[in-house]
Amino acid sequence: VFDTLPQARAADSEGPGNYREVVITIAELGEFGLIAAITTKFGDDVAGLEVGVGDDAAVILAPDGRVVATTDMLIEGRHFRRDWSSAADIGHKAAARNLADIAAMGAVPIALLVGFAGPGHLAVEWVLDLAAGIAAECSVAGAKVAGGDTSRAELVIVSITALGDLGGAAPVRRSGARPGDVVAIAGAGSLGAAAAGLALVESGVLARQAEAGLAASPELLDLVNSHRRPRPPYAAGPEAVRLGATSMIDVSDGLIADLGHVADASGVLIDLTASKLAVEPVARPAALRLAASQVGASDWLTWVLTGGDDHVLVATFPADVVLPASWSEVGTVTKGHGVALDGQIWSGTGGWDHFRS
Amino acid sequence: VFDTLPQARAADSEGPGNYREVVITIAELGEFGLIAAITTKFGDDVAGLEVGVGDDAAVILAPDGRVVATTDMLIEGRHFRRDWSSAADIGHKAAARNLADIAAMGAVPIALLVGFAGPGHLAVEWVLDLAAGIAAECSVAGAKVAGGDTSRAELVIVSITALGDLGGAAPVRRSGARPGDVVAIAGAGSLGAAAAGLALVESGVLARQAEAGLAASPELLDLVNSHRRPRPPYAAGPEAVRLGATSMIDVSDGLIADLGHVADASGVLIDLTASKLAVEPVARPAALRLAASQVGASDWLTWVLTGGDDHVLVATFPADVVLPASWSEVGTVTKGHGVALDGQIWSGTGGWDHFRS
Repeated sequence: VFDTLPQARAADSEGPGNYREVVITIAELGEFGLIAAITTKFGDDVAGLEVGVGDDAAVILAPDGRVVATTDMLIEGRHFRRDWSSAADIGHKAAARNLADIAAMGAVPIALLVGFAGPGHLAVEWVLDLAAGIAAECSVAGAKVAGGDTSRAELVIVSITALGDLGGAAPVRRSGARPGDVVAIAGAGSLGAAAAGLALVESGVLARQAEAGLAASPELLDLVNSHRRPRPPYAAGPEAVRLGATSMIDVSDGLIADLGHVADASGVLIDLTASKLAVEPVARPAALRLAASQVGASDWLTWVLTGGDDHVLVATFPADVVLPASWSEVGTVTKGHGVALDGQIWSGTGGWDHFRS
Repeated sequence: VFDTLPQARAADSEGPGNYREVVITIAELGEFGLIAAITTKFGDDVAGLEVGVGDDAAVILAPDGRVVATTDMLIEGRHFRRDWSSAADIGHKAAARNLADIAAMGAVPIALLVGFAGPGHLAVEWVLDLAAGIAAECSVAGAKVAGGDTSRAELVIVSITALGDLGGAAPVRRSGARPGDVVAIAGAGSLGAAAAGLALVESGVLARQAEAGLAASPELLDLVNSHRRPRPPYAAGPEAVRLGATSMIDVSDGLIADLGHVADASGVLIDLTASKLAVEPVARPAALRLAASQVGASDWLTWVLTGGDDHVLVATFPADVVLPASWSEVGTVTKGHGVALDGQIWSGTGGWDHFRS
């Protein structure tokens, strides 16, 4: 119901007593009322914030003497659809994309700034659910919403900046992978899940099953949820620092594409082992195979290799590292250039390019 | 020419030798090519950046152990029009709005993160001019572009986050104004200029004069430039800290509206003196009067009182302050609530509300 226009929604909700639910739009509430309402969703705990929402700028404690910062924009119709994801889902995802980038530097997320724009007819409730989703994802990662900006636009835009703290450690860059390192992934079972979930939503197969009264398989619903709310392994970022990671990146464009950035920046060849990628806990082969059969895809491994938006972390470590259970070894680093699968340079679709795709 | 679509532009530029100028669009260049091209506009000076553009996140030195952070989104059609402002103008303005918020806390701007979205048919040159405008405004304020994000959208969106450093000082908040304080403005001659300049552009009067072969008055052109490129007095922010400012805000919604936020947060009445507002160097009365006569406005003082987007700084100081020439006294703080002009509570239009206006 989150995508229903207020007018349609008010009409739908006329009850037997001729009761008409009142839906307040953001145009009716106005900018300052909306900001006040949103702020209630961010909670009272302002530890780490010297100045939070409500001034010209926030003042955030950065005890390390450096701050890690990243920004990312989600645009309706491009990054999400309001009839495919709830407002809370979109909030979780917008926050997670940015918080994962902080973790991928080896830092702990500390604060988020949120830019929001939307049409005047949007229900206030929708925006508050979005804010609650952002706040909930922040809680998972240990960050606070420190400030933001609201504006009007014909479509919903969520622009987020995340800040993080390195706690005295050196940032883990893309450029430090060395021949002899091992490649490992944190983010149990997520690789390819978001892409498979999106394919399921796009195909409409689950909606048709629901209409026919058939219960959807829990495995498939979980893939759809992975598309709607990625679950980045935030704690694995600082953990990788302690394990001596030589490079790290979060998988947002696809495993091959993102490892391509690491290979380019480091001047190395990264060789993935298919048999290590296509098993639990790296990916969920059974669920992915089932999804492929449901949507008529001939191949499920492509989701694992090129699916974007999972936001797992992939890092390289010296060969003698002893990896805890949160990290799964999936390949090795050698001399050369590019990314290979079982020794063959990958030549398929590499991932997303936002202006071409 | 910045707003010309590539197709139209290529056709226009067919020369006598049947030469056709090749305009490269951002769809043709692709996301990674565009990012590489934009990055060249940000310069080689990376002092203050441990990690700049090109990794999952930037790492920015914040020697104070706190970071000041603000974010703001500019949306085509709402905050700017590509036929009224050049790409460089839009870049300057997008950066200035955020950098001014940093100065309004009493901090020195250190870094900017830039989110950009635009249509695939946009000329790469337009985006590079936008990036150059952002970089140039950063240079004025002493900040660096540390990172960003690009995406595709049907219209141009520029979302900026600015970070700043307090250098050990306490932030100047909106809530510290006390009865007995004086009110002062920094930003010589800018108050009302952006609103008058926008009215001139909207009226089309200068365009019609140009078509008739008449030269526009330099005063009016300067007002239009104030609308296109606000000139916030960045250095006056930290200066206000040294002068003992008790509260400070930047004028983005209008003087009355923004002082209303200070009055509300501080629990005081702010009384402005009209004769001190309507003179150089606070405003430019002659230019504003001329603009009012050109666009048929009955009143030019309303621009001074309610015009947004000038990004001057307005602060309160203890009564015994000795203000340097960069600050002009324009009123006093007393017991009470709200904002008054010559003792009369203001009841006109208070400023912008993005969802209602």
